[in-house]
Amino acid sequence: MRFRPVDTSFYDLFTESAQHLVVGAALLAEMLSETAVHADVAARMRQAEHEADETTHALFKRVNSTFVTPFDREDIYRLGSGLDDVMDMMDEVVDLILLYEVKVLPAELSEQVDVLQRCAELTAAAMPGLRTPGNLEEFWIEVNRLENAGDKNHRRILAKLFSGEFKTIEVLKLKDIVEALEGAIDAFESVANIVEQIAVKES
Amino acid sequence: MRFRPVDTSFYDLFTESAQHLVVGAALLAEMLSETAVHADVAARMRQAEHEADETTHALFKRVNSTFVTPFDREDIYRLGSGLDDVMDMMDEVVDLILLYEVKVLPAELSEQVDVLQRCAELTAAAMPGLRTPGNLEEFWIEVNRLENAGDKNHRRILAKLFSGEFKTIEVLKLKDIVEALEGAIDAFESVANIVEQIAVKES
Amino acid sequence: MRFRPVDTSFYDLFTESAQHLVVGAALLAEMLSETAVHADVAARMRQAEHEADETTHALFKRVNSTFVTPFDREDIYRLGSGLDDVMDMMDEVVDLILLYEVKVLPAELSEQVDVLQRCAELTAAAMPGLRTPGNLEEFWIEVNRLENAGDKNHRRILAKLFSGEFKTIEVLKLKDIVEALEGAIDAFESVANIVEQIAVKES
Repeated sequence: MRFRPVDTSFYDLFTESAQHLVVGAALLAEMLSETAVHADVAARMRQAEHEADETTHALFKRVNSTFVTPFDREDIYRLGSGLDDVMDMMDEVVDLILLYEVKVLPAELSEQVDVLQRCAELTAAAMPGLRTPGNLEEFWIEVNRLENAGDKNHRRILAKLFSGEFKTIEVLKLKDIVEALEGAIDAFESVANIVEQIAVKES
Repeated sequence: MRFRPVDTSFYDLFTESAQHLVVGAALLAEMLSETAVHADVAARMRQAEHEADETTHALFKRVNSTFVTPFDREDIYRLGSGLDDVMDMMDEVVDLILLYEVKVLPAELSEQVDVLQRCAELTAAAMPGLRTPGNLEEFWIEVNRLENAGDKNHRRILAKLFSGEFKTIEVLKLKDIVEALEGAIDAFESVANIVEQIAVKES
Repeated sequence: MRFRPVDTSFYDLFTESAQHLVVGAALLAEMLSETAVHADVAARMRQAEHEADETTHALFKRVNSTFVTPFDREDIYRLGSGLDDVMDMMDEVVDLILLYEVKVLPAELSEQVDVLQRCAELTAAAMPGLRTPGNLEEFWIEVNRLENAGDKNHRRILAKLFSGEFKTIEVLKLKDIVEALEGAIDAFESVANIVEQIAVKES
């Protein structure tokens, strides 16, 4: 009897993908510091985004060339794309800060970046657990909780932007940045939801 | 011989889901009235959105636990999500009005809310008819017609916003609200299109 | 022995669809010229968009009524929708210029329209080659290259918009137009990616 093992490298690639997000979130935090050299942080972010792309491509290539996948091919694509989307959104935040030459960012933005860093760490810690996805309930509940907190921050920041404290042109710039931050947090929630759906199917 | 009946509760759940949209559209109309207490209407909208979510979850749970579904599982998901998207968009309109503290809304907005109320009523009336979807042609034609009318309104409102009559910061606020309204109308059109596609498959 | 030929008209319909995009991109270029009568060009764009819709509908109708399709039904839908999305985005650019009554457009916008015209020509030339999609590698590589160039232009234009040279209300208008242009270029990239995926499957 031949035993055909399920390719374990899928878990490794998902973990690698999530680790890129930990790096990306750290660069985002650096970008918000008062002493940051924007062009320099943005260049490193572009590099991190590029490496994340390569992991995603390696994952998709493996799906196409593997006979037995640990779970539905389609779910592997969705989770891989979901992780990649987070990186793209974080990259966009950094890029907008550079492009719009925003020098002073409202302090509330760091709360959103804290949420992103926490989500990234949780996701990286959860990926090896995809072997038994039913055990990841705490992960997806906590990410959903963080997304709720992020949404409350987001609304508070928007209210502040429109409070009259900022010039209209600054509102226009900051709104784009703030919405991209919110988009990155939402993208983490999507990842958590995909993991939950995989767990439901497997159960 | 055992007869395995198609679960009729799917039709009930779709109808319930559409009825939440009738409630949501009415709250939106209330929000636009000059005497509305924004925080109060928004709280009731949040409650309505929450109840709509519960109907959607009940629907998805039933799809997962039912052997024979009245039409493709995938189409049930799409229609359920499509109805849920309308609620989310209407909730966003209310939320933005509250958040941006917009006191005076251009009168043209009520025309868009009229369109939404009409779409909601048509959709709620159509859902029980999913048993024989081919008979729902008038429904999807009328919703498409309403969406066209809404699109014309939308463009007229945008032109007015940029006519020089409003301060730029107000344009920025109102544009978000107006686009969310348009998004809600588009979401109704998507629902109508999904129903049409289900009818085509069944025919 | 009966030979069941694969319906060749799919290739013709994809080609027709891409030829509408060549027309659309030319109208967009006309819209940017200093002497353009905006309402007139916009009316012709609406007509072109309408004709493109009819081609898309003919394509989808044929998929539904044909037994043997040249490649996956789902991929035919994706490619057909992808081509249609480009037309919608180009139509939106023209529509926004008309609606916002923007008289003077920054010269950099024509570079983006050049990219669109080049993408449209490449796509129209590539469609008959779908019979042997593996030979279309140059097509998708070149469209991706053009999209990268378009992205660089886009960022340069955004930086210029926020440089202080424009009134805030003009920034608000131009940003919408510039983002719709970028959306049209991205939509071409999606088309190229779909073609690449079809080629990978066939290989």
